[in-house]
Amino acid sequence: MDAAEFRKRGKEMVDYVADYLEKIDKRQVFPDVEPGYLRPLIPDCAPQDPESFEDVFKDIEKIIMPGVTHWHSPYFFAYFPAASSFPALLADMLCGGIGCVGFSWAASPACTELETVMLDWLGKMINLPEEFLAGKDGQGGGVIQGSASEATLISLLAARTKTIRQVQSENPELTEADIMGRLVAYASDQAHSSVERAALIGGVKIKNVSSDDKFTVCGSALKKVLDEDKASGLIPFFFCATLGTTPCCSFDRLLELGPICNKENIWMHIDAAYAGSAFICPEFRHLLNGVEFADSFNFNPHKWLLVNFDCSAMWVKKRSDLIGAFKLEPLYLQHHHQESGLVTDYRHWQIPLGRRFRSLKLWFVLRMYGVTGLQEHIRKHVRLSHQFEHLVLQDERFEICAEVVLGLICFRLKGSNELNKALLKSINEAKKIHLVPCYLREKFVLRFAICSRTVESTHVKFAWQHISQLATDLLQTWEHNDHQQ
Amino acid sequence: MDAAEFRKRGKEMVDYVADYLEKIDKRQVFPDVEPGYLRPLIPDCAPQDPESFEDVFKDIEKIIMPGVTHWHSPYFFAYFPAASSFPALLADMLCGGIGCVGFSWAASPACTELETVMLDWLGKMINLPEEFLAGKDGQGGGVIQGSASEATLISLLAARTKTIRQVQSENPELTEADIMGRLVAYASDQAHSSVERAALIGGVKIKNVSSDDKFTVCGSALKKVLDEDKASGLIPFFFCATLGTTPCCSFDRLLELGPICNKENIWMHIDAAYAGSAFICPEFRHLLNGVEFADSFNFNPHKWLLVNFDCSAMWVKKRSDLIGAFKLEPLYLQHHHQESGLVTDYRHWQIPLGRRFRSLKLWFVLRMYGVTGLQEHIRKHVRLSHQFEHLVLQDERFEICAEVVLGLICFRLKGSNELNKALLKSINEAKKIHLVPCYLREKFVLRFAICSRTVESTHVKFAWQHISQLATDLLQTWEHNDHQQ
Repeated sequence: MDAAEFRKRGKEMVDYVADYLEKIDKRQVFPDVEPGYLRPLIPDCAPQDPESFEDVFKDIEKIIMPGVTHWHSPYFFAYFPAASSFPALLADMLCGGIGCVGFSWAASPACTELETVMLDWLGKMINLPEEFLAGKDGQGGGVIQGSASEATLISLLAARTKTIRQVQSENPELTEADIMGRLVAYASDQAHSSVERAALIGGVKIKNVSSDDKFTVCGSALKKVLDEDKASGLIPFFFCATLGTTPCCSFDRLLELGPICNKENIWMHIDAAYAGSAFICPEFRHLLNGVEFADSFNFNPHKWLLVNFDCSAMWVKKRSDLIGAFKLEPLYLQHHHQESGLVTDYRHWQIPLGRRFRSLKLWFVLRMYGVTGLQEHIRKHVRLSHQFEHLVLQDERFEICAEVVLGLICFRLKGSNELNKALLKSINEAKKIHLVPCYLREKFVLRFAICSRTVESTHVKFAWQHISQLATDLLQTWEHNDHQQ
Repeated sequence: MDAAEFRKRGKEMVDYVADYLEKIDKRQVFPDVEPGYLRPLIPDCAPQDPESFEDVFKDIEKIIMPGVTHWHSPYFFAYFPAASSFPALLADMLCGGIGCVGFSWAASPACTELETVMLDWLGKMINLPEEFLAGKDGQGGGVIQGSASEATLISLLAARTKTIRQVQSENPELTEADIMGRLVAYASDQAHSSVERAALIGGVKIKNVSSDDKFTVCGSALKKVLDEDKASGLIPFFFCATLGTTPCCSFDRLLELGPICNKENIWMHIDAAYAGSAFICPEFRHLLNGVEFADSFNFNPHKWLLVNFDCSAMWVKKRSDLIGAFKLEPLYLQHHHQESGLVTDYRHWQIPLGRRFRSLKLWFVLRMYGVTGLQEHIRKHVRLSHQFEHLVLQDERFEICAEVVLGLICFRLKGSNELNKALLKSINEAKKIHLVPCYLREKFVLRFAICSRTVESTHVKFAWQHISQLATDLLQTWEHNDHQQ
């Protein structure tokens, strides 16, 4: 395919994508396919000779679309939102065209420098303390990671290296393995599984801190486990606080936890993967109070800030902590400007070496929506979630299971877990909307997340009427069959 | 921006990208900017109110392009190639439009299933042993990682978990920390820095194995260090063999190393990040002989197989080894089909949770080029590298520093490192072409990598004449100033 054909096919693809997104509400949100559906539909091997674009293009509707879960459908209420917007799609086209691999400043100065400045823009939008910004000569700064999991892992590894060095400087007789065996990290029992995974990867212990009846970790709960562990010879070194937990969007109490971490010399990382985008609205910014005690902070514009996946924003107060954990410098990656204080080599800030020009997406989205446009998007979602909450509360068969703060509602039928599992099954089998569940303590709960950029009040109302009707049907047979326990 | 405007702007962006790539040879390959150039060019904060697409668009040439290193210029001969092709760009547009996050089968069945089948296609193209393929009910299979660094890390972590479990089952009195402190990984002294980094992240020791005068690790070198380490109580558990090292594209001797690893119960991972793409040509496939002894294998179609970054292909013989190292399963990520043998949840195969629909790029590229089209691309690059080698060899002032096997030539002026540093400096300051150096043993060497999809014989000839002229100029002043030592 030459440039001339790309011009033609590229424009066809633009129209296909526009059509797909414009009419996505006409597609069934969750596919009908069974596992293994795709393999029989395509050849066993790559073709020897080139096929035409038309051949490939017609297979999109035939082979791909029947197996797609439509994350941008206004009937998609599962997981958390995946961001998507036209400005971000345009930026990604440009990113692909430039096709640079920005692992160092010299590998593409614009790629590195725009990222640093965009993370400053974004940091200012959520009113992050100055220390987290790169500014002209700050010690902190931001970076785009691929996912919150990587941000958590990177911060845990930085904390691990820092602590090992500290302990060794005070106790030179201890080996690294001795110290590693005593290190312990902490997170809420409501924290995302990626925190446990980060500890697993880093080869250190991790312990759950009990959350309270609001699914929130408070200072005394952390203090208790720290005291016990220190008494038994362990070395607490890392605490991951969550703002907006995955099960129910609860918020750990930073203002209590932060001072404890600072006093005990424990790295505090804040994972606000979903909730972080809301902090651009002044009325939600208070949820971030206490960030001033943290060493690192992360949220995902690719969840709720209209920047297509992947774009996970992470900030640290001291970039030297990150770089110190990783810096390895072979000659072929060195460059002339390396020692200048203005140069950032982002490969030292992340797990992979290579990186795409992802800051273009932020630049396009922040400029073409403006802060007010993005605030409107967040506020619309929160308004819709309260609308759904209100509908649930009006129906006395149901209960709300956790405070609705942002765009997630946890709810269930009053009754057994089996009953609620049956309700979810009937919802997801009908495939008119799509939800996923969670457990809150021992309760099986349905999560209703406001997801799509184009979701409106009518979709939420439809979803509720549908759920309500399925519940009515279910309760009739359930009572009839005497399943209720 | 609504869909109607996206149709208009998307088409403009398609033309912009086509123009950029068509006329990229007219741009200076390496930018003139100094560190910190970008910040003064843009505002301090995101705008409150939306800006128009035109505003943003005109800033691409004004602010971004002056700071771009043009990786796809035919005058770019640095690092290794970054792949780019029009079919891959089209696929990425579709990937962005669908915008699913395929962490589990249910999160988007097509995303998972196409990936599995595409990795089978690709595995067959390089004639990987059957055990590495997923097939209909294989124990192995492939996955797309973001980078070779992640593939190395994942395999090292899988090996670590496997070994710890094994050792603990034989010595239940040993703690995980005891064992971790004795684990040791190995790689060539020519291996990429990401291998050392993987060990650093995994909290285990790593040792260099000495390469021979061809920059190759042979069996006896590995055997020697294994015997020493076992005698001193260490537990060897992981060896990363390299096919196509970054400094000079040398190849470790798999046929000697593999049997040793198998006998010693050491996980052998093969990193063929750059060279792997060449194995689709029968005349280069012999370089992969011995892969049958490996536990995991990785190469980067995003380097040399015309699939835009990121697309790093990794295969394992036993998927249970990867999954066993990581599997954590909260309820909100479980789904109905989970226990079926046909279902793959790729989140257990990688560091991040989220993942884009990257297999679309493979599907488009493999079909629209066909195997023969991709073979032609590889063969053209290898032909051009031998052309450059030939030009160097005809000039007795220069020497070739390592065997030219694929698309990389390591060369230097006969003389001191200082002389060669001066030559590289004059080349990169002239900015007509772009190269990076490496050290081979103590020698400072220039790396000339055939990179661009559109590079032709005329560009290579131009590059050589340019280098040759700069060398003439340099040698005159050098001799005049009596700098030569």
